[in-house]
Amino acid sequence: MTLGERSIRVLVAGAAGRMGREAVAALAEDGRFHIAGALVRDPGRAPDGLRVFTDPVHAVEEARPDVWLDLTDAESVVRHVDLAISFGVRPVVGATGYGAEDVARWQKACEERGLGGVVAPNFALGALLMIRFAQEAARFYAAAEIVELHHDGKKDAPSGTARRTALLIRDVTGRDVPIHSVRLPGLVAHQEVIFGGTGETLTIRHDSLSRASFMPGIRLACAKVMELSTLVYGLEHLLW
Amino acid sequence: MTLGERSIRVLVAGAAGRMGREAVAALAEDGRFHIAGALVRDPGRAPDGLRVFTDPVHAVEEARPDVWLDLTDAESVVRHVDLAISFGVRPVVGATGYGAEDVARWQKACEERGLGGVVAPNFALGALLMIRFAQEAARFYAAAEIVELHHDGKKDAPSGTARRTALLIRDVTGRDVPIHSVRLPGLVAHQEVIFGGTGETLTIRHDSLSRASFMPGIRLACAKVMELSTLVYGLEHLLW
Amino acid sequence: MTLGERSIRVLVAGAAGRMGREAVAALAEDGRFHIAGALVRDPGRAPDGLRVFTDPVHAVEEARPDVWLDLTDAESVVRHVDLAISFGVRPVVGATGYGAEDVARWQKACEERGLGGVVAPNFALGALLMIRFAQEAARFYAAAEIVELHHDGKKDAPSGTARRTALLIRDVTGRDVPIHSVRLPGLVAHQEVIFGGTGETLTIRHDSLSRASFMPGIRLACAKVMELSTLVYGLEHLLW
Amino acid sequence: MTLGERSIRVLVAGAAGRMGREAVAALAEDGRFHIAGALVRDPGRAPDGLRVFTDPVHAVEEARPDVWLDLTDAESVVRHVDLAISFGVRPVVGATGYGAEDVARWQKACEERGLGGVVAPNFALGALLMIRFAQEAARFYAAAEIVELHHDGKKDAPSGTARRTALLIRDVTGRDVPIHSVRLPGLVAHQEVIFGGTGETLTIRHDSLSRASFMPGIRLACAKVMELSTLVYGLEHLLW
Repeated sequence: MTLGERSIRVLVAGAAGRMGREAVAALAEDGRFHIAGALVRDPGRAPDGLRVFTDPVHAVEEARPDVWLDLTDAESVVRHVDLAISFGVRPVVGATGYGAEDVARWQKACEERGLGGVVAPNFALGALLMIRFAQEAARFYAAAEIVELHHDGKKDAPSGTARRTALLIRDVTGRDVPIHSVRLPGLVAHQEVIFGGTGETLTIRHDSLSRASFMPGIRLACAKVMELSTLVYGLEHLLW
Repeated sequence: MTLGERSIRVLVAGAAGRMGREAVAALAEDGRFHIAGALVRDPGRAPDGLRVFTDPVHAVEEARPDVWLDLTDAESVVRHVDLAISFGVRPVVGATGYGAEDVARWQKACEERGLGGVVAPNFALGALLMIRFAQEAARFYAAAEIVELHHDGKKDAPSGTARRTALLIRDVTGRDVPIHSVRLPGLVAHQEVIFGGTGETLTIRHDSLSRASFMPGIRLACAKVMELSTLVYGLEHLLW
Repeated sequence: MTLGERSIRVLVAGAAGRMGREAVAALAEDGRFHIAGALVRDPGRAPDGLRVFTDPVHAVEEARPDVWLDLTDAESVVRHVDLAISFGVRPVVGATGYGAEDVARWQKACEERGLGGVVAPNFALGALLMIRFAQEAARFYAAAEIVELHHDGKKDAPSGTARRTALLIRDVTGRDVPIHSVRLPGLVAHQEVIFGGTGETLTIRHDSLSRASFMPGIRLACAKVMELSTLVYGLEHLLW
Repeated sequence: MTLGERSIRVLVAGAAGRMGREAVAALAEDGRFHIAGALVRDPGRAPDGLRVFTDPVHAVEEARPDVWLDLTDAESVVRHVDLAISFGVRPVVGATGYGAEDVARWQKACEERGLGGVVAPNFALGALLMIRFAQEAARFYAAAEIVELHHDGKKDAPSGTARRTALLIRDVTGRDVPIHSVRLPGLVAHQEVIFGGTGETLTIRHDSLSRASFMPGIRLACAKVMELSTLVYGLEHLLW
C-alpha cells in the first residue's frame, strides 16, 4: 500500500439516513478509511461527493469494498448481509431487524470462508462498558435495579440495552432485575444500573446525548473487522 | 418569663422510640424548649434525665406542657391527640395511623378553643420543598415522572411522598404522573421528580440520609405552634 | 385582525446562524407569528422562503415588524437594538455582548415611548426555574454548592448561569457559594445546585440537551413583549 | 475443628470506638468468627460480653488470636501491628496513620514468616469496584473528571479515594484528572467519576451511607487473610 493511501474501502449502505450521513462523515475524517461507495434508495438524497449506487450487486461489484457497513433497516439488512458475505465482503451491521437465525447463518458462512464480520446491537462504547461493569459488579451485591430513560418518541419499553443488562446480571446471580422505563420529552438515551449493598450503593450510568456517540464504535468495527476471520456478535468482543 | 428560662414546655409521647430519642436530643439542645416530660410504655427504656410518665392523663396534668409532641404509633396517636386538645395542650403530630376524620375532628376542636396544632406526614424540609417546586414546575412542562428509591425494608410502594407529589402535579396539569419505586439495600429515602420539555429536563431530588433530617421540622413545628390558633395539616403551612 | 391571520410580525436578525435557523423554524410552526423578514450578513446563507435583508434600516422600514428578535453577536446587537427602539419596534434580545449601560439606556428609551422589550441571558425555562427554586430553597439550608457541567469547547468557567445562581443565593444568605466547573466532551449544558441540611440534601438539576430548549422561551418572549410597555431584563419576569 | 466451632479467632483492637463496635457486631453474627478478645483503652467503655484487655501483649498472649483486626488510630496502629506480626498473628489493618515504610517493613516481616496480612485504606466494596471500573474505562475515553462529595466535617480535600482514583486513571492515560470536592452538611461519603467521549458520558458513582458499608470488606479480609502467606495492600487483591 502506498504511503498515505487510505487502506480500508467501506461501502456504506443506508448512507442517506441520519445515521448513515453521520457515519459517512465520521469515516471520511479518519485517515484509515476510504468510502468506496454509498448505497441509497433515492440517489437525489445521497451525501455529496460520493460514488452512489441504488443496486446492491452493482455496488459490491463496482466499488469493490473491503467492508459492507449496513445502516439500513429491517427490510434490507438481511438480504444485504447475505449478499456481502457471498461476495467475500466483510459485513459490519448496525441496522436492526434481523433474527437469531440470520446471525447463525452469517456466522457459519463467514467461518467457512474465513471472513471477518461484526454484528452489534449497540455501537456506543459507554453502553458496552456499562453492561460489562454491571455484570462484574453483580456478584458482589445482593440486589440491583435498572432505570432507563429515553425520549418520549421511543416506542419499545424496556429498551434493548436494559433487557440485555438485566439478562447478563441474572446469568451471574440467578435473580431477576427490575427495570423502570422513564419516557419524557427532552431526554435522549440514558440508563443507570443501581446496586445496593450493606450501607452503600454503586451506580453505573450511561448518557448518550447524540448519534455521534455511535461513531467511535463504528470506526472501531470497520477497522478491526479486517483482522477477524469469523463473525462476532457484540462490539464487546473487539474491546476486551 | 425570666431571661434565659426555656419558654416552651414540650411533652414527648413515644420518647423511648428511635424517633422519640432523637427528638428529645434535638429539643434539649435548642434553648427555646424545655422537655416537660416523656411518655413511654416501658419506663425502663426511657431516655435518662427526664421526668417519665406511663399514663397520658398524669403526664398532661403533672407536666403541664404547652405542646404535646406525639411520636407514638397507630395504636395510641388518636387517643393522645384527643386528650391533649381536651386539656388545651397544642398537639404536634409526627406519628401516623390517624384518619382524615380524626384530622377533621381535631381541626374543629382546636378552632373552637382557639388552640394551635400541627399534623404533618413529613417533617423533612427538603421533601416539602421538593413537592412545592414540583408543583410549581408542573405548569411549564408537558410531562413528568417520579423515581422514588428506598431501602428494601420499606413495605409500601409507591411511597406516601411520591403519591402526594403526583397528586399535586395532577392538580395543576390534569395528567397522571408515572411513579417508579426502587427498593434496594443500602438506600435510605430518596426521590427525584423529572420534568421533560423541548430539548431539556429539570430534576428535583431529595435525599434523606438519616432521621436527623426530621429534627429541624419538628423544632419548627414545636415553636410555631405557639403562634397558631388553628390546627394546620402539613408543615408547608409554617414555611411559606 | 382577520381570523386566522398571524398577528405578530417578527424580524429575525441573525437568521442564518444556528440559533437563528432554529428560531425561524420554531416561530414559523407557531400560528401566532409571521416572520416579516430575515436579517443576515450573507444572503446566500439565509433560510429558504423568507424575505431577506442585509441592511437593518431597510429591514425595519420595509418589513414593518412588531418585534425585533436579535440573535446576532457582540458586534451587531447594540446597534440593532438602538435602531429597533428608535423605530418603535419591540426588541427581544437573545444575543450577548451588550453591557449594563446598554440595558439601562434601552430601558430608559422604552419607558419614554411606552414600548415593550425583553432582554434575557438565558431562554431555557428549566434554567430559570432552577435559579428561582435555588433562591427559594437557600433560606432553609445552611450551605449550598453548585456543580456545572459543559462540553469541553466552552471557553468560560464558571458559566454565566452558575454565577447568576450563586449571586442570587448570596443575596438571600449572605454566604458565598462554591462553584465547580466540569468540562468534558460528550456533555452539553448541565447544572446542579446542591443544598445540604441536617441529615438531608436537596438537589435541583437542569440538563439542556439541545438548542431546541431555548425555543419555548423565545416564543414566550416574542408573544408577551406585545403586552409590555417597558423593557424587562430576565425571562423570569414573564413567567411568574 | 469440631463441627459448629467458630474457626477464626479475631482480636479486635479499638473495640470501643464507633467502627470497632460495629465490627464486633458484624463478626459476632457471622458463624466463621470467634471474637477472642477486645483491646480497649478504657475497660468501662468496652462492648458487653467480651474478654477485655488493655495491654496488647496480654491480649495476644492470653486471647491467642488468629487475626489481629486493628481499628485504632495513628497513635497505636504501628506498634500494634509490629507486635502482632512478631507473635505470628495475622494483621488486618483498618486504622490509618501508618507510613509507606511501615507497610514495607510489615510486608518483609510477613514474607519471612509466611504470614498472611491485609492493610486496606478503604473497606467498602463499592469504592473498590468504582476505582477498578474507572481504571478500566479510562483507556476508552479522552477525558475524565471526579466529583467527590462529603459531609462538612471532613477535614481533608480531596479525599484519599478521589486521589487514588485520579492516580490510577493517570497511570493508564498519562493525563491528570481534575477533582472537585463538595463539602455539605447532610452528605455522608459519595464520589462520581465522569468520563466524556464523543456524544456520550459514562458515570460511575459510589454512595456510602453508613459505617455498615465497611463490614462486608472487614469480614472478607478476616476470612481471606487465613489463606494468605504474604501481606497485601488494598482489599482489591482479595476480590479479583
